[in-house]
Amino acid sequence: MIPMPSHPSMPPVSAEAAGVLPSGIGEVFAYGFDRPGLIPLWVGEGDRPTPDFIGEAAGRALRDGATFYTRQLGIPALREALAEYVARLYGGAADPGGFFVTVGGMHAFQIAVRIAAEPGDEIVIPTPAWPNFFGAIAAQGACTVAVPMQFDAAAGWSLDIARIAAAVTPRTRAIVLNSPSNPTGWTATPEDYAAVLAIARNHDLWIIADEIYGRFSFDPAHAELGRAPSIRDVWEAEDRDRVLFVQTFSKNWAMTGWRVGWLEGPPALGRIVDGLILYATSGVATFLQHAAATAIRDGEDLVRRQVAQAREGRRILTEGLGGLPGVDLPPPPGAFYAFPKVNHEPDSRALALRLVDEANVGVAPGTAFGPGGEGFLRLCFARSADDLHEAVRRLSPALSTPAGR
Amino acid sequence: MIPMPSHPSMPPVSAEAAGVLPSGIGEVFAYGFDRPGLIPLWVGEGDRPTPDFIGEAAGRALRDGATFYTRQLGIPALREALAEYVARLYGGAADPGGFFVTVGGMHAFQIAVRIAAEPGDEIVIPTPAWPNFFGAIAAQGACTVAVPMQFDAAAGWSLDIARIAAAVTPRTRAIVLNSPSNPTGWTATPEDYAAVLAIARNHDLWIIADEIYGRFSFDPAHAELGRAPSIRDVWEAEDRDRVLFVQTFSKNWAMTGWRVGWLEGPPALGRIVDGLILYATSGVATFLQHAAATAIRDGEDLVRRQVAQAREGRRILTEGLGGLPGVDLPPPPGAFYAFPKVNHEPDSRALALRLVDEANVGVAPGTAFGPGGEGFLRLCFARSADDLHEAVRRLSPALSTPAGR
Repeated sequence: MIPMPSHPSMPPVSAEAAGVLPSGIGEVFAYGFDRPGLIPLWVGEGDRPTPDFIGEAAGRALRDGATFYTRQLGIPALREALAEYVARLYGGAADPGGFFVTVGGMHAFQIAVRIAAEPGDEIVIPTPAWPNFFGAIAAQGACTVAVPMQFDAAAGWSLDIARIAAAVTPRTRAIVLNSPSNPTGWTATPEDYAAVLAIARNHDLWIIADEIYGRFSFDPAHAELGRAPSIRDVWEAEDRDRVLFVQTFSKNWAMTGWRVGWLEGPPALGRIVDGLILYATSGVATFLQHAAATAIRDGEDLVRRQVAQAREGRRILTEGLGGLPGVDLPPPPGAFYAFPKVNHEPDSRALALRLVDEANVGVAPGTAFGPGGEGFLRLCFARSADDLHEAVRRLSPALSTPAGR
Repeated sequence: MIPMPSHPSMPPVSAEAAGVLPSGIGEVFAYGFDRPGLIPLWVGEGDRPTPDFIGEAAGRALRDGATFYTRQLGIPALREALAEYVARLYGGAADPGGFFVTVGGMHAFQIAVRIAAEPGDEIVIPTPAWPNFFGAIAAQGACTVAVPMQFDAAAGWSLDIARIAAAVTPRTRAIVLNSPSNPTGWTATPEDYAAVLAIARNHDLWIIADEIYGRFSFDPAHAELGRAPSIRDVWEAEDRDRVLFVQTFSKNWAMTGWRVGWLEGPPALGRIVDGLILYATSGVATFLQHAAATAIRDGEDLVRRQVAQAREGRRILTEGLGGLPGVDLPPPPGAFYAFPKVNHEPDSRALALRLVDEANVGVAPGTAFGPGGEGFLRLCFARSADDLHEAVRRLSPALSTPAGR
């Protein structure tokens, strides 16, 4: 119990509450968010609002009176649409009973952590990684065990499976595997997945698979599939029951602000997930779920446009910034972030603050992404080509010149 | 760690997940929810969808592109509207910085528990009480200490402050005070509030004040205020910093399915609540918040209609059921539930199941509400007079006749 010293009349707050992690992106965001004309590449969302056909589906459901309490795990129409989508994209069959609708991908990850870990338990995560992983694990009282990945200025990022295996202890309960990765774009190979599955099987661990950026794969070898490799491509029958997928409508369907996502796992977890949702959020508004079902059913053209825009954005940033002196930027194979290493400025927090002032561009400092992130910056390229060309134009002198010279 | 024995390939789940409480209303609901013509009085919501002026505000915000990520604590327009509402209804000033928008009142309560309690800590609750209190506390690994209230067939329910004081131990972190109470309708007096505040002050405890049904007060003495007494009526300056209010748009504004509520507390908690929301739900959709602001700003006529309907519903149920032989039903002073005691059927679970078969009416068994609830039933009267007259007609023979006779 930690007292709040500035308020002598306030009772103490729990250790988990007192220890809640600040967002590593928040400081830069607070510093720059109100600058006129700033180009915001610091968060993971595009620049266009949700297409009308999705909003109109929400409006229709509202007018039809879909405003009452609903099932914690999601309306059957959406759970069936999710199963069909997964079966179509990954092949094979999917059971709607294994799909649980959540308040965004973040909520899906939080539930996954609550299923897997008790206070003091450990969760292994290759880093750099999405900072909210660390925050949700800490808020549960559990511990993140970060396993830094390897960076090569030419070949990009790679995962050393032996280091994952070495990080497992008797307190380990889960491995988080985010591929394509936010922030690095690293994309797991089938061999990576098979190796992680073997570790999980040997130690009775959950795998929390974040394949949220799975549609954003720029490897020509994946073009026909329309997605990056998935852990589904290599699992054996019993492995299905140790994988929890966290997913969201945010990225593919331009619905970041809607807060609708899903958790996929063994249908036998339904009773537990039902309770964890009942006593937290009590479900997602029915009219939002109808809109989400419309998005996933009628949104393939939208997804293709989103991926095409990101592909062009990736080209602009990697060509524009990758050639600057002292900047290493191997093209990311997936997701929608450039993650350049700026060799002459190892303090990425200071650099991100300086770029607000000197370039009026908002970027996320690599420190936000945990061990291995220092020295890097994250820039979202899921935006219009015009914005990104202008960002390159503004960033080039600031990134080329070491601070203070 | 509890293994899931039916799935040998599934890794173990955390103790909190494995111990998630089933909903005490769920069994009866599952038994009867698909019966044609059943009158559903088991959950706490009305029979009319959200009025159009609220849904239209959401539609406008959607069309205006309010579909991006937003602030965790809520948009300023809503936080200001909440502060104005509270200042208007309760008198005095309110700081928008102390209002935190949540995914419904349930989420507000969960955050309050996470602020106050660590695993193993105790939270004192007068019972019978809303079952989700127990569920959220258990999911946090904390312990509910139930303090049964007193029932008198003529005078109704009362709270013995000495029993609250006696329940406090060194592990106690909070007292939950729900007034008007779901399910009993009991309404705290200013003296009750002052006494609980004194206990909290002496032992450095949080008070989690659930005044969600505050507008639903049927005591003529409260008619002019338009609300039940509140803990705000009696607190001293420093007490403000130990009270966390959980609130919701669900009841007053007929928005149960929207999942929008709020937590009110010391503004100094903002940083902590921001993190607890960021790593759980990451906020509430902006377009829903615009609709909520419209509801609270333009919805006073709606609230008055809702309260008037409940007042008529209360008359129908208390007159219709209160006079049955063996049934004790003192009129509840607040909230929108009848909570009759059925003296010839002490097994309320069996009775609730039987009423589905014999009366085609859905009620909640008193056992769902914790110690002191056995022998009672909860019936929601926030419905049309026609439905409630018909429910009385159907229930009267079934409630008058002891089972099997």
